[in-house]
Amino acid sequence: MTRTVVESRTKTVTIGFDEPFCVIGERINPTGRKKLAAELEAGDFSTVEKDALEQVACGAMVLDVNAGVVYNSNPDPNETEPPLMRKVLETVMALTDTPLCIDSSVPGALEAGLETVEGRPLLNSVTGEEERLERVLPLVKKYDVPVVAISNDDTGISEDPDVRFAVAKKIVERAADFGIPAHDIVVDPLVMPVGAMGTAGRQVFALVRRLRDELGVNTTCGASNISFGLPNRHGINAAFLPMAIGAGMTSAIMNPVRPGEMEAIRAANFLMNHDANGANWIGFSRVLEAVKGGATFAEASKAAAASRSGRRRRRA
Amino acid sequence: MTRTVVESRTKTVTIGFDEPFCVIGERINPTGRKKLAAELEAGDFSTVEKDALEQVACGAMVLDVNAGVVYNSNPDPNETEPPLMRKVLETVMALTDTPLCIDSSVPGALEAGLETVEGRPLLNSVTGEEERLERVLPLVKKYDVPVVAISNDDTGISEDPDVRFAVAKKIVERAADFGIPAHDIVVDPLVMPVGAMGTAGRQVFALVRRLRDELGVNTTCGASNISFGLPNRHGINAAFLPMAIGAGMTSAIMNPVRPGEMEAIRAANFLMNHDANGANWIGFSRVLEAVKGGATFAEASKAAAASRSGRRRRRA
Repeated sequence: MTRTVVESRTKTVTIGFDEPFCVIGERINPTGRKKLAAELEAGDFSTVEKDALEQVACGAMVLDVNAGVVYNSNPDPNETEPPLMRKVLETVMALTDTPLCIDSSVPGALEAGLETVEGRPLLNSVTGEEERLERVLPLVKKYDVPVVAISNDDTGISEDPDVRFAVAKKIVERAADFGIPAHDIVVDPLVMPVGAMGTAGRQVFALVRRLRDELGVNTTCGASNISFGLPNRHGINAAFLPMAIGAGMTSAIMNPVRPGEMEAIRAANFLMNHDANGANWIGFSRVLEAVKGGATFAEASKAAAASRSGRRRRRA
Repeated sequence: MTRTVVESRTKTVTIGFDEPFCVIGERINPTGRKKLAAELEAGDFSTVEKDALEQVACGAMVLDVNAGVVYNSNPDPNETEPPLMRKVLETVMALTDTPLCIDSSVPGALEAGLETVEGRPLLNSVTGEEERLERVLPLVKKYDVPVVAISNDDTGISEDPDVRFAVAKKIVERAADFGIPAHDIVVDPLVMPVGAMGTAGRQVFALVRRLRDELGVNTTCGASNISFGLPNRHGINAAFLPMAIGAGMTSAIMNPVRPGEMEAIRAANFLMNHDANGANWIGFSRVLEAVKGGATFAEASKAAAASRSGRRRRRA
């Protein structure tokens, strides 16, 4: 049974076929967030702190940390991103023991992250590009961490799902050459926008099933890509996630501060028999009631968690 | 390619693997609706009329009609149900040309329905019970209609999905003996409440895939059974339907007057590549906007349909 273990100093999250879906919070990422990018360049980490706590409250099981800021003062990310990655990771680790995912396209930043994070973080990412395979897989082996493998290569992103499968297979095989087992590879089969490509959903569902059956790997995706450019995106996301889970997808990098998407995932966990007696569903229903009553999703989630730990204490 | 054709005098609906999911409106059914039962016994069909129009406005593609009232004045449904079935069907046909599904456990009421309805209604249902097979399949053959086959038999409803598959297979084989093709059988694999049986969801997804791959049949279910007894049932239903559609389910008997469930189905249609360029999704998003603005779902749906047909007229 494929199990990908991600750990902080004190907490373990297992991504697996027989586990609840793993929600990886995507918010700590300055890409497309000008205000956050400016704050980070100015050394202000208050938004990072807020995003970390809010995502954990709403149900993120792993926090993705991306520090991809292009400074006005120095445009070379190979120089600026590694120290910023360290600083952001330290900021997040000081606040929460949720396991982390080190996310960068700059190998030096990945390595800086690996030196900084305690436990067994998820590394995000390697691709099928030769240079990247040769640079990242030795880090994966050296630090004994699991890695996200994105199914594009030196020829770019193929619209043909068979090519994307072949790229994933190549990465898994190359990793094996380095002594990295398949259960430490979490493949992202790449989700295209369904508004631009009508087959995008079916491609992902079929790919996830093949990746699982033929390569025995866990899978992830940037879930919201599916609805790019469409009205009422959250409605598309909230159907896509259960369908992907039904097809066998085991994690997603997504915004957990969205009650609609999180409701869909919690219902799907229950329907996959990954929520014994519906205990999580029933607890989550109370959170949604509080949201209807006017609370924010994060507030209501925090209150529910506090009430649960209060009950545990009283029972103890 | 399996195609089950259901027709009114003027309209055709195809249930099929390459078609949008077929929503069969369940509302015209006095079971568990005391007020409606009393109205029908008193000859008042106003709720039937309202339910018919509202369901069609909200997107029902077929209307299920059940007239299973146990009269206070005459407790024998074999006497009372056939004439009431005729009357309810006539009432509905006078209002809408949406294709119909004749729903009864009283064979005489099924036959009365078949004599009444124009076109090619869906018959609901036959089971694997011997007496019922021998009574209903000849009607299916005589009137050349498609039929819902429920996978229970003389031993009851099995909790074992392999037994339910075997019952479905028996019905398909028996139907073949009568000259009824598999594409005219729509199997209901029976949905158990996930609150009572944690494997209920996975059973259905696996059964739907087998029924499709091994028997080549379309499938349906009473979708809301999955969430029986649970809080926030609509959240469970809205994840179950896309997951079932992803597994290959092609129709459901359900309440279409629920925007959450209908949103999930329309998103799933898009994700299955059964909504060219997302035209239906984009139109439906406008309906949801109007619902947020305070309109009822039926009102907003009617307004959107009127605006579409207005645009068609202006273009003509």
